[in-house]
Amino acid sequence: MQKVLVLNGPNLGRLGSREPDIYGALDFSELTAAVESAATKLGLSADVRQTDSESELIAWIHEAVDAQQNVILNPAAFTHYSYSLRDAAVQITKAGLKLIEVHLSNPHTREEFRHTSVISGVATGVIAGFGSDSYLLALAQLAK
Amino acid sequence: MQKVLVLNGPNLGRLGSREPDIYGALDFSELTAAVESAATKLGLSADVRQTDSESELIAWIHEAVDAQQNVILNPAAFTHYSYSLRDAAVQITKAGLKLIEVHLSNPHTREEFRHTSVISGVATGVIAGFGSDSYLLALAQLAK
Amino acid sequence: MQKVLVLNGPNLGRLGSREPDIYGALDFSELTAAVESAATKLGLSADVRQTDSESELIAWIHEAVDAQQNVILNPAAFTHYSYSLRDAAVQITKAGLKLIEVHLSNPHTREEFRHTSVISGVATGVIAGFGSDSYLLALAQLAK
Amino acid sequence: MQKVLVLNGPNLGRLGSREPDIYGALDFSELTAAVESAATKLGLSADVRQTDSESELIAWIHEAVDAQQNVILNPAAFTHYSYSLRDAAVQITKAGLKLIEVHLSNPHTREEFRHTSVISGVATGVIAGFGSDSYLLALAQLAK
Amino acid sequence: MQKVLVLNGPNLGRLGSREPDIYGALDFSELTAAVESAATKLGLSADVRQTDSESELIAWIHEAVDAQQNVILNPAAFTHYSYSLRDAAVQITKAGLKLIEVHLSNPHTREEFRHTSVISGVATGVIAGFGSDSYLLALAQLAK
Amino acid sequence: MQKVLVLNGPNLGRLGSREPDIYGALDFSELTAAVESAATKLGLSADVRQTDSESELIAWIHEAVDAQQNVILNPAAFTHYSYSLRDAAVQITKAGLKLIEVHLSNPHTREEFRHTSVISGVATGVIAGFGSDSYLLALAQLAK
Amino acid sequence: MQKVLVLNGPNLGRLGSREPDIYGALDFSELTAAVESAATKLGLSADVRQTDSESELIAWIHEAVDAQQNVILNPAAFTHYSYSLRDAAVQITKAGLKLIEVHLSNPHTREEFRHTSVISGVATGVIAGFGSDSYLLALAQLAK
Amino acid sequence: MQKVLVLNGPNLGRLGSREPDIYGALDFSELTAAVESAATKLGLSADVRQTDSESELIAWIHEAVDAQQNVILNPAAFTHYSYSLRDAAVQITKAGLKLIEVHLSNPHTREEFRHTSVISGVATGVIAGFGSDSYLLALAQLAK
Amino acid sequence: MQKVLVLNGPNLGRLGSREPDIYGALDFSELTAAVESAATKLGLSADVRQTDSESELIAWIHEAVDAQQNVILNPAAFTHYSYSLRDAAVQITKAGLKLIEVHLSNPHTREEFRHTSVISGVATGVIAGFGSDSYLLALAQLAK
Amino acid sequence: MQKVLVLNGPNLGRLGSREPDIYGALDFSELTAAVESAATKLGLSADVRQTDSESELIAWIHEAVDAQQNVILNPAAFTHYSYSLRDAAVQITKAGLKLIEVHLSNPHTREEFRHTSVISGVATGVIAGFGSDSYLLALAQLAK
Amino acid sequence: MQKVLVLNGPNLGRLGSREPDIYGALDFSELTAAVESAATKLGLSADVRQTDSESELIAWIHEAVDAQQNVILNPAAFTHYSYSLRDAAVQITKAGLKLIEVHLSNPHTREEFRHTSVISGVATGVIAGFGSDSYLLALAQLAK
Amino acid sequence: MQKVLVLNGPNLGRLGSREPDIYGALDFSELTAAVESAATKLGLSADVRQTDSESELIAWIHEAVDAQQNVILNPAAFTHYSYSLRDAAVQITKAGLKLIEVHLSNPHTREEFRHTSVISGVATGVIAGFGSDSYLLALAQLAK
Repeated sequence: MQKVLVLNGPNLGRLGSREPDIYGALDFSELTAAVESAATKLGLSADVRQTDSESELIAWIHEAVDAQQNVILNPAAFTHYSYSLRDAAVQITKAGLKLIEVHLSNPHTREEFRHTSVISGVATGVIAGFGSDSYLLALAQLAK
Repeated sequence: MQKVLVLNGPNLGRLGSREPDIYGALDFSELTAAVESAATKLGLSADVRQTDSESELIAWIHEAVDAQQNVILNPAAFTHYSYSLRDAAVQITKAGLKLIEVHLSNPHTREEFRHTSVISGVATGVIAGFGSDSYLLALAQLAK
Repeated sequence: MQKVLVLNGPNLGRLGSREPDIYGALDFSELTAAVESAATKLGLSADVRQTDSESELIAWIHEAVDAQQNVILNPAAFTHYSYSLRDAAVQITKAGLKLIEVHLSNPHTREEFRHTSVISGVATGVIAGFGSDSYLLALAQLAK
Repeated sequence: MQKVLVLNGPNLGRLGSREPDIYGALDFSELTAAVESAATKLGLSADVRQTDSESELIAWIHEAVDAQQNVILNPAAFTHYSYSLRDAAVQITKAGLKLIEVHLSNPHTREEFRHTSVISGVATGVIAGFGSDSYLLALAQLAK
Repeated sequence: MQKVLVLNGPNLGRLGSREPDIYGALDFSELTAAVESAATKLGLSADVRQTDSESELIAWIHEAVDAQQNVILNPAAFTHYSYSLRDAAVQITKAGLKLIEVHLSNPHTREEFRHTSVISGVATGVIAGFGSDSYLLALAQLAK
Repeated sequence: MQKVLVLNGPNLGRLGSREPDIYGALDFSELTAAVESAATKLGLSADVRQTDSESELIAWIHEAVDAQQNVILNPAAFTHYSYSLRDAAVQITKAGLKLIEVHLSNPHTREEFRHTSVISGVATGVIAGFGSDSYLLALAQLAK
Repeated sequence: MQKVLVLNGPNLGRLGSREPDIYGALDFSELTAAVESAATKLGLSADVRQTDSESELIAWIHEAVDAQQNVILNPAAFTHYSYSLRDAAVQITKAGLKLIEVHLSNPHTREEFRHTSVISGVATGVIAGFGSDSYLLALAQLAK
Repeated sequence: MQKVLVLNGPNLGRLGSREPDIYGALDFSELTAAVESAATKLGLSADVRQTDSESELIAWIHEAVDAQQNVILNPAAFTHYSYSLRDAAVQITKAGLKLIEVHLSNPHTREEFRHTSVISGVATGVIAGFGSDSYLLALAQLAK
Repeated sequence: MQKVLVLNGPNLGRLGSREPDIYGALDFSELTAAVESAATKLGLSADVRQTDSESELIAWIHEAVDAQQNVILNPAAFTHYSYSLRDAAVQITKAGLKLIEVHLSNPHTREEFRHTSVISGVATGVIAGFGSDSYLLALAQLAK
Repeated sequence: MQKVLVLNGPNLGRLGSREPDIYGALDFSELTAAVESAATKLGLSADVRQTDSESELIAWIHEAVDAQQNVILNPAAFTHYSYSLRDAAVQITKAGLKLIEVHLSNPHTREEFRHTSVISGVATGVIAGFGSDSYLLALAQLAK
Repeated sequence: MQKVLVLNGPNLGRLGSREPDIYGALDFSELTAAVESAATKLGLSADVRQTDSESELIAWIHEAVDAQQNVILNPAAFTHYSYSLRDAAVQITKAGLKLIEVHLSNPHTREEFRHTSVISGVATGVIAGFGSDSYLLALAQLAK
Repeated sequence: MQKVLVLNGPNLGRLGSREPDIYGALDFSELTAAVESAATKLGLSADVRQTDSESELIAWIHEAVDAQQNVILNPAAFTHYSYSLRDAAVQITKAGLKLIEVHLSNPHTREEFRHTSVISGVATGVIAGFGSDSYLLALAQLAK
């Protein structure tokens, strides 16, 4: 069974309590459960993780490269400035794996600084704006 | 059965022959067939159209608003400058409908001018980089 | 009786249903009637037209130049990018005719991209922010 | 009879002698007379004033807010930098009154720096390019 | 006999009457005749067309690609913003054909916005500033 | 008893009636009383003044330099463009005195143009966002 | 007794030895003592912490939100790029708590890159330029 | 005897005490005396004035236009933003008179914002960097 | 027989060996021969020169002005920064002569810095992208 | 024997497998060995470390300052945004020690965002583009 | 007798014939004579030179530094880009000598690119806009 | 014995006397001697040259390409604008040779305009900030 790393960046552990008008009422454990359950239905095994730490996120991406696993990445605010994360992420597609960047909200409908992504340029594709469904669509795509 | 308008902008009728290294080998009729077939399986009816004309694309969006239909829109190069299309598109979400912006390729891995979208700011969500699967993911989302 | 061409750009045919909080509740036929009626009272004949097509709008401007008619132009979203329309419009003032740019809303109170007009630089004058009255003021000015 | 404050910014007292190719041959007292006369015909009372002083202009706007009077404002060169005037002006529309920004010439056909207005964003509407008629159109609108 | 498509963008049908100080006194039918005649002398067959419509221009470029014909393109004002035209045009050179961008006037001696071309980046070459001779030079080059 | 000049720029005399959602319900005389009272408790004598005039504000700063008094300055909209005020203000710190820039609201949560201060670069320190308490904190600091 | 989290970003643990001409001679333990002592006098309990780690700083902010505590934050260099910290910080004010951004020095008198704060836009208020007194003023404000 | 208006903008009355390292030790009355004396030697009559008020400076320029007098203008900080002053100043050269912009220091060796002048574009010439001699050179030029 | 100066800027003497993928395999003596030969056929006399020196290039342009000769100029990298060359070149067209700017490659398909020309604004016309044929087309145009 | 800290930023632990076309085939342990060996030959002791963590890198720099050791720093992607690292690094040169910034590749031949370094401004010197030799050159310089 | 080097940059040898509407009818030998004569009257010896060569101009500046002579420099178009000339020029003022930058015309009334000087930042002072009198004023200043 | 061209740009012949606080006390002949001596020890033959002339520098680079010699280049102020030099330099690396850009000082610690290099993008590597040692490190690298 194909294992997928589903990696989440800073403040996403706060889902549910954090700006529910933007990110929805689902908390992070519910999101995790929804993603794991959807993955199972698609014949995938989702390993859902969250960290506020840039270096931990980078380490997980290195782990994915070594284990030859596809990655679904919600970089959260790292999207806008973490070139370190970009340098890690580019290794995924260079290794012939897939990196799908996901966002709960649609960044283009929010503040100006959210319109720029330093990650998208090294992603296989981007899915944004569908709440937790953004993850499920990414899983569906990887299951093909 | 929910009808979905799947609208395609300039030069997308040339798929297959046009830069297959970027857009894939599928031609537009094959894309249409794939989208229609996938829609049917999801219990949707997809009405797939393509035009090189900004005004025709706008008219189709007006039609969707009047018929209360969700829209999957690949604005192609209009993405980068057609504020007229944006003004049409904003009516979709204001009417409580969904507008999903799709792209075959991931614009952020291409020329600088493709990194700016004047449409994303009025879309429900964005799916980019998965070839024809970008459409199928959008359909899957609308089918929920 | 002096004939005036009153030309309207993309999405203005949707008035009334389109974002009434911004553009008002008047629909396009009501706007047309109001403009025609006001023109008559001023001893003018207003020919009110709307199109979502850049080329049709250009053609109408050419028609005005040939017929030596003044033009009231609401370029709608073309305001912000259509240099083709600008190149057509400059012929009006070069022919000694008047081109009055009108807007229902005041673009400067809206999104950043609406603060730039590529048309104003070739217009005789600009009237913006008075709803349908913007047209009536333009007519009043042409009637002098 | 509704009183309207017609406020004019720096150098407008020099009309007639100042760059008549741009601003017309009418001098300021003639402009004042034309505006007062037009106002009377419209059933309005126009109080026409001019100052080169930013603080005096701000004081007059405060006066308008307190007296609940609509304002026609030609900010002249303050248009391009006086955020103090903007902060005064915003009180007019916040008080439910009307602020109409007028210009004798069309700033968009002149130097680059004249294409930016820090006032328009807090105005009800803008009328530019019709010489002294810009004021008369503003009066006509207020008379409605 | 090699056929060449000579495509002309918005407002070029107005040649002769439109700003003759910039574009010359030749009208469009005279330009057409001059181009056709010169082509014949060079052993080419020139098919000269003009449209104010972006989509029609795109269609003609698609036609050229399918018919394997070289193209001389005067994009007029589309030069400055039509990425749709660019996406069409790139297919010409990708197909091993030639796309020569021509301009009657030299855009670099005119307004700032005319200094930017979104088409030149996908053209084989550019010829600008020689009036109708710009076309004849392009023909001469294709005849080699 | 140390005397402190508490200087207020344009439109601050309108406090209470001016945008109370942003600036609070306190009017300027109440602000003055609060500042004077707080100063007395701290063993200071506060001389609170307000003007809409750039030159009067500059004169008061010159007065402070001559009298060797510290200054609390709310430059209001002058914050964003008055280099004249900056040139006056720099004399305060060059004379070994203190200049504390205060703001009722936090400019960084408001319009883009309010994010730039031409005064902060010559101030001892900045206190913003605490309503009238911004002044009291500045007094407390000067009382040390 | 109200508890206040006083959080300090990267390199602030080096106070005293680090650029004393800019940051003062006080070392971090002395700063801590001064803040704790001042807090006690104001009837508050200050919990002073420092970290060079973005993720630890984010965690402390989450802790504050959960414990319903106000925060005094000196983001140090994170001020200029950490959108992750911003996304954490915005939860404080959304929870009805106070976030006061403090700086020892006045960033506007230093290098250009220090003139931009990505944190100020989500802070209740900002106090900068008073050395360790910046913290004490923030405490005084929270004690009210 | 030709009369010359020598006009000085904000903070120049503070010469001598104001940043003598930049502006020199001469105070304003000494500068006045030096200018008057030099003028007399050149057969001119210098009327030296200073104001911190933008409107007073504008009024003096209007006076010069009416009296047909050449002007030496040190706009001080107005140099960088006062388009009102520019609009006044342009009348001088349009009237066939001379406007010489002078600066005590060389603005290009100072802060970035001093590198831009909104006045130079309407001046006959510019003399900067020679302390009070800048004025004397301007006088010498007018005496020719 | 009309003499034409064909002037070539820095590094063009290295043709053939220098980046043949961009500039072609023809070396500079072959280019010279081709140009001279083509000129002769057109009844012109081409004087082909190359220099890496800005001042020598300027001198040749002065020579052309004095000898009343048209110029074909390939400014090479001077295109992007030599305002000195521009100031020389403008004399050609001011003298009623022709200056044709030519490029072997199409600069718009290369690095960003090559998209800006400081020379085009003073040229009669521009021909770029046709290898050595760019020169022959320029000759053909001058021969008319 | 002088000890040198050789600090490496994010993703450099992946050398060898990470984009060998850019960074070379040497893996990080081989790089470490090469640096240690070269240091020994130069009479230095190199302490080579790598981390993906910004805070750990900052801590190591603090350690160097305290131990009075020179530093060779490859900031990797932190080069482009980590002002926190800059604030740490500035302490090295302020302490009279040397900070040499090294890069394996030459950032100026790569993506635009790599052309900006926020670290170079506080470094003693920069060595880039020589693969692992960049480190050896830095060691050689420190050994002098 | 103090010797002054009067150095002139590219194209200034063409005075008289070159754009006399901008630069005046005086040719370069007349300018030289006027400067030499004026210098003599002031008790100075002017050595007037002109070159189109950047390196020759730099050499002359080195000569001035070595001979401890003041310099009057009209950098012509080098003003806008020659950082090499700037690096030479800075040595003059560092040596305690005077460098006066002069211009015949007022660059601020001409093209945008002429508004930027890379030389002014290292000049003692600037005199522009007085035709050949700009030089005479500079001489007068040096004679003091 | 491998010969290395060590090329130096404008004003470097002035070393020792030119801004010794920035460039050190070593004069150019001493630098030459140091480089030659170091080269000899490394088994290289260094040919050290200096010129203020862009064209001479270009010629030397052409000479290096023809002689298949590596180059150490200190472009001095040409670093910031000479695209001609860049076009010459790119031939070195295209010929499989090495081009090492060196600087005595670290440009990133100096004026803003020195932060941009138009040469680095075509260099093998860059060494900056080590005084004359920058050259010696470059030699050491070439000796490998």
